[in-house]
Amino acid sequence: MHPFDHATKLQPLAQGAYKAETSPVYANMVGPFGGVTCAVLLNAALQHPDKLGQPVALTVNFAAPIADGTYTVTARPARTNRSTQHWVMEASQASGVVALATAVFATRRPTWSAPEIQAPQGLPAPESLARMPNVNRTPWIKAYDMRFTQGDVFSGFDGKDYPDSRSCQWLRDDPPRPLDFAALASISDCFFPRIFLRRRRAVPIGTVSITTYFHADAAALAAQGERYLLGTARGLKFHNGFFDQSGEIWSHDGHLLASTHQTVYFKE
Amino acid sequence: MHPFDHATKLQPLAQGAYKAETSPVYANMVGPFGGVTCAVLLNAALQHPDKLGQPVALTVNFAAPIADGTYTVTARPARTNRSTQHWVMEASQASGVVALATAVFATRRPTWSAPEIQAPQGLPAPESLARMPNVNRTPWIKAYDMRFTQGDVFSGFDGKDYPDSRSCQWLRDDPPRPLDFAALASISDCFFPRIFLRRRRAVPIGTVSITTYFHADAAALAAQGERYLLGTARGLKFHNGFFDQSGEIWSHDGHLLASTHQTVYFKE
Repeated sequence: MHPFDHATKLQPLAQGAYKAETSPVYANMVGPFGGVTCAVLLNAALQHPDKLGQPVALTVNFAAPIADGTYTVTARPARTNRSTQHWVMEASQASGVVALATAVFATRRPTWSAPEIQAPQGLPAPESLARMPNVNRTPWIKAYDMRFTQGDVFSGFDGKDYPDSRSCQWLRDDPPRPLDFAALASISDCFFPRIFLRRRRAVPIGTVSITTYFHADAAALAAQGERYLLGTARGLKFHNGFFDQSGEIWSHDGHLLASTHQTVYFKE
Repeated sequence: MHPFDHATKLQPLAQGAYKAETSPVYANMVGPFGGVTCAVLLNAALQHPDKLGQPVALTVNFAAPIADGTYTVTARPARTNRSTQHWVMEASQASGVVALATAVFATRRPTWSAPEIQAPQGLPAPESLARMPNVNRTPWIKAYDMRFTQGDVFSGFDGKDYPDSRSCQWLRDDPPRPLDFAALASISDCFFPRIFLRRRRAVPIGTVSITTYFHADAAALAAQGERYLLGTARGLKFHNGFFDQSGEIWSHDGHLLASTHQTVYFKE
């Protein structure tokens, strides 16, 4: 079993209730990597017998650090319409609620479709770039193969403020794993905190809320397979303890698979 | 009482439970303007006696049309930490849940702060621009004074596809009203659906999920007062029944007050 599937496995306790367990492979500085928590909460809806359609939107609020070990996850379809379904998910431990989420699922049908924002053009192929070094980094970083064309955060650490937090990178699971909604939800949280790029040093941070919009169906994700995805991200504003950042996950051939936004606590 | 305060008034039923009522001033094609629903749900947390700090993030999922008349709103602080608080809000009618929301509140303190994205420069003053005509439009549009410098949606309706959905506009409540969090949450939903700008005609749409990040405290919002805000927005991708759009609300003097993202159902 791939470590990601192990880390996001849910053991059913009752309808809409599951036991989950943190994985050392995806450990972060404090608690697990948030992307895996997003995947676990999405899985709780994906595996529910009343599920309708596929994910369109996912918001996860990180309420408290998840302690290493097991936790309980619940998923409730709060409203099911003809072609859309609204979910509420919660993760909890003895300390109380540790994460809250909502999701919108939908049965999609073919319509007029068009991109608007465009993927960067003319980038070097991922195979021609060096992988970001991950020694002495928090464990989850080793679970992703990241190759930057811009904003390789740690290599620029000189403590001198920089005005631009944009980054552009190829990335995929390590070991490679076929893409699905859970993996895409997790990869959407792979962008390093933009304050690291502005301050050019690590500062204490914690995402408080992340929202991801999905622009592909399961078949399109399966077509991406194990190939490198392209990730682009930038910060919007840093203000009195919180900043927000927006990112995009593109397929290997330039289709937008997900757009993702988050607001992050920081201490400075 | 200003019509917005009337439309977002909550009558306490019990701790964390309120009665709300739709207002004809903010009626939309089907049900109320979503911005007012965002404001009502945020108010339910803002008025809760256990509230800590000020809003940082708000996500509202529109689960079903709200029928004209009264509805019930609940707000529950799911987790209260030292400086952050996580909320779950729900609106319901006899038909079931009509809207779901989560919010993060926080006690902010002064830190290193910096903008990154910048407001458009050199725009004409709002007083020098014509107000967008609102005759024969859905009622809520009359509750906002909008003056476009780019992407004045309805004037461009010729049914010919256009590749760019960007817009830039001054806007404020009509009649003017001092800015606060509830008003900012509502104004964040004022951007017309980007598909109208791409298709250059109206098509059936409905926002399914909106997320707004707040970049100002109550004092900064009060300092904006009744002046015109600047709103900028663009679409990201239109695909098989859903598209997403991102926007920014800037103060009269170019400070980012909120960034906002939504995904929208469309029928084409």
